[in-house]
Amino acid sequence: MSKHLTKRSDNYSKWYNELVVKADLAENSAVRGCMVIKPYGFAIWEKMQQELDKMFKATGHENAYFPLLVPKHLFEAEEKNAEGFAKECAVVTHYRLKTDDKDKAKLIVDPEAKLEEELVIRPTSEAIIWSTYKNWIQSYRDLPIKINQWANVMRWEMRTRLFLRTAEFLWQEGHTAHATKDEAIEEAELMNSIYAKFAKDFMAMPVVQGVKSESERFAGAEETYCIEALMQDGKALQAGTSHFLGQNFAKAFDVKFANKQGKLDHVWATSWGVSTRLMGALIMSHSDDNGLVLPPKLAPYQVVIVPIYRNEQQYNSICDKASQIKSELENEGISVKFDDRDTQKPGWKFTEYEMKGVPLRIGIGPKDLEKNTVELARRDDLSKSFINQDELIETVKITLKDIQNNLYDKAKNFMTKNTRSTDDYNNFKEILNNNGGFISCYWDGTSETEEKIKNDTKATIRCIIDTEDIAGKKCVYSDKPAFAKVLFAKAY
Amino acid sequence: MSKHLTKRSDNYSKWYNELVVKADLAENSAVRGCMVIKPYGFAIWEKMQQELDKMFKATGHENAYFPLLVPKHLFEAEEKNAEGFAKECAVVTHYRLKTDDKDKAKLIVDPEAKLEEELVIRPTSEAIIWSTYKNWIQSYRDLPIKINQWANVMRWEMRTRLFLRTAEFLWQEGHTAHATKDEAIEEAELMNSIYAKFAKDFMAMPVVQGVKSESERFAGAEETYCIEALMQDGKALQAGTSHFLGQNFAKAFDVKFANKQGKLDHVWATSWGVSTRLMGALIMSHSDDNGLVLPPKLAPYQVVIVPIYRNEQQYNSICDKASQIKSELENEGISVKFDDRDTQKPGWKFTEYEMKGVPLRIGIGPKDLEKNTVELARRDDLSKSFINQDELIETVKITLKDIQNNLYDKAKNFMTKNTRSTDDYNNFKEILNNNGGFISCYWDGTSETEEKIKNDTKATIRCIIDTEDIAGKKCVYSDKPAFAKVLFAKAY
Repeated sequence: MSKHLTKRSDNYSKWYNELVVKADLAENSAVRGCMVIKPYGFAIWEKMQQELDKMFKATGHENAYFPLLVPKHLFEAEEKNAEGFAKECAVVTHYRLKTDDKDKAKLIVDPEAKLEEELVIRPTSEAIIWSTYKNWIQSYRDLPIKINQWANVMRWEMRTRLFLRTAEFLWQEGHTAHATKDEAIEEAELMNSIYAKFAKDFMAMPVVQGVKSESERFAGAEETYCIEALMQDGKALQAGTSHFLGQNFAKAFDVKFANKQGKLDHVWATSWGVSTRLMGALIMSHSDDNGLVLPPKLAPYQVVIVPIYRNEQQYNSICDKASQIKSELENEGISVKFDDRDTQKPGWKFTEYEMKGVPLRIGIGPKDLEKNTVELARRDDLSKSFINQDELIETVKITLKDIQNNLYDKAKNFMTKNTRSTDDYNNFKEILNNNGGFISCYWDGTSETEEKIKNDTKATIRCIIDTEDIAGKKCVYSDKPAFAKVLFAKAY
Repeated sequence: MSKHLTKRSDNYSKWYNELVVKADLAENSAVRGCMVIKPYGFAIWEKMQQELDKMFKATGHENAYFPLLVPKHLFEAEEKNAEGFAKECAVVTHYRLKTDDKDKAKLIVDPEAKLEEELVIRPTSEAIIWSTYKNWIQSYRDLPIKINQWANVMRWEMRTRLFLRTAEFLWQEGHTAHATKDEAIEEAELMNSIYAKFAKDFMAMPVVQGVKSESERFAGAEETYCIEALMQDGKALQAGTSHFLGQNFAKAFDVKFANKQGKLDHVWATSWGVSTRLMGALIMSHSDDNGLVLPPKLAPYQVVIVPIYRNEQQYNSICDKASQIKSELENEGISVKFDDRDTQKPGWKFTEYEMKGVPLRIGIGPKDLEKNTVELARRDDLSKSFINQDELIETVKITLKDIQNNLYDKAKNFMTKNTRSTDDYNNFKEILNNNGGFISCYWDGTSETEEKIKNDTKATIRCIIDTEDIAGKKCVYSDKPAFAKVLFAKAY
């Protein structure tokens, strides 16, 4: 495999596509729009899952599992939700194949095994879950229900890209049920802030928190909270959403509860999710022209040790030392790979681990053994230094923390620098053309204005960040009184 | 919810169905044959997953993810595999729904969104994975590949039962690729023994390891290794399988590698899996007429603390003590639930936690505070004792280990007692009618004999346990020279 990567400045999109494959993260499959997540990519996703799962459980959520398939009559019960997803649904119509009489080596769909009612592969699970909650909820004592599910979902997208937009993707979807509107709103806000915290603390990715405009809202939601990140090419990426669903699904599925006074009311709902799309966000937040750059907290291995030797005797003494270093690091909770393969040269390995974004590389050669040193190379800034072996463990610990912080600071600076305010629509367009990034401005609150700006510039409202401090402010496009301060950007 | 459970001796099957629902493990969904796994049931499955995942990784396996859908032409490539699963496949034929012109609130399948090629929801993933491995494997340097995937699969079974046989189920499927036949066989055997170890060490469930007869083999395998457990009603349950696939899939998908000498050969394969069926096995190994009995190593919480009080003052002092005990136990790595709900009485809670199989229950009342004691109740033998609080932590630690061992010993004794040898076919039938359990006997190796015994008695060969020590032995049915010693049983 050639390790040459298109430069970001030449073609960012091509750079991304190549990186995902060359860093061994994922590849396209034989099924249109569906990806294979390779072991190295999946290991990163597993780390994300583990940390998110801990955060969900720490806030009182439990995991469960609901069916993959949704009967059509349930799917269509909540009208807006159904309308929103109907045009991208994979539909199961038959439950059997049979041998083709014309060619015994082939199979055909058995027309006699047609389902009475079609089944939709879940694009999201509100319908199947709320039809189930109906049987679980009678009184306020049964509330709240706070359930999360890790699952695959399917949306038949026409234009797909690895991690960013795939027909099948992996995600978690939380579905909660509450006795009061306030409690449900609090939950939706809490989960959005947990997503923001996860992005910051683990992905080293700064995000803006806000709410969506009506036209960008989840189909069936009253309010969609979101976290928005800014990629290196100046385009925004919606990294997670949390929805206050009001009583829409409770009404669609007739889910009522008796309150303490015995009065019946519909249940209040939220749902919230992040997906393997976060992998794309992670890649485009930190990586460079040499390949992937990973924050240490999500790296499958944080340190790789590469031995440098010319003969077996050297190899043996270096291996002893490397194994010792490996186990000392592991005792400190640091994950380490020792690459002792003799099928590849050190230089090849250096390039490989740069491509894969391993945060720290330790090189040990015969001279290092003599001098009691190792070479330590940082992936984030590509700096190298020679470290006395006696100080190695401490240095690695400190450096990993430093890399994690450095990546966040760099991304945060980038976002700050690329968030521009304007009151002037010509300036708005100039910024989009020359710089990209977030544009902070005022909006009159109408879908018409939003639509016109979108058609004119391809930029959309990523989120509403303030509806209070708007006295005297005017819409950047229409000059009408402002409804809110918003962030516009072109987006993934 | 009524806590009354049908007795095992009255109707074992009914007892099982009721227990699964009343212990809050799972329930049937709106989709035929598909279940909802409820939080308490899912927490047990998560514990199983975590332990298995550790064992897989410790033996050099990595996780990855492959697509849910399999194009029909890939599905049919390995003939036997395709033939085996074709009759129970859910088939996706369309990718869009549209509004029904006759009724705007309804959706219909959009005939214009018919797929050119049908997609099968994976009943197992050999086809999609080997069509992918083809691109990953060129030389011996690319081998072995040792990948596992945690996923949902779908087999359109006609008669379903919660956990034991469902149309959709959750499982893990390992798929490995090797340069030599010996290495692949070694892998298949290793994974079967890991399943046996997991069953013993975590599920407290003894199993027999063996290989399947040809008629019970996985479709597309050369050899199927399995673990077989014995349920309380004397029926066997196949708890896990590991397949040596020979070169069948490599040939079907043209996957070749160059060996060290540069010669091309087809790759050797294995696959292996366990599923949510293990939940059924766990339930039917240990539970009793009061409900679920869980081995401490898989219990979502190992200890539940129930306060007993008559007024708020009592409640407050007991809460203080209970919280202290809880955190002391948690410091020892023991998982604890403190049920301080005031909506339910202690007696109700006792019944509830018996039904849910919590290994240890601690009751604390006002008298306990005076005497510095607690009441400790074991779920496995329903014994109760008063323990001095100073000895509580140590006693809980020891008792949890004792419960884990006791459950295994009990199940092991049951299996030993219910494994009977015979050379006589009339006796064989008598054992099946009167006792059930495993029958150890000799078999002539023909499918005819196997088929005749099955038609006659409903018992099948669960596994072949010995093909060596058979000199002079004769088939229990045909009197012909023995091919192997086998275990027969009626099975789930």
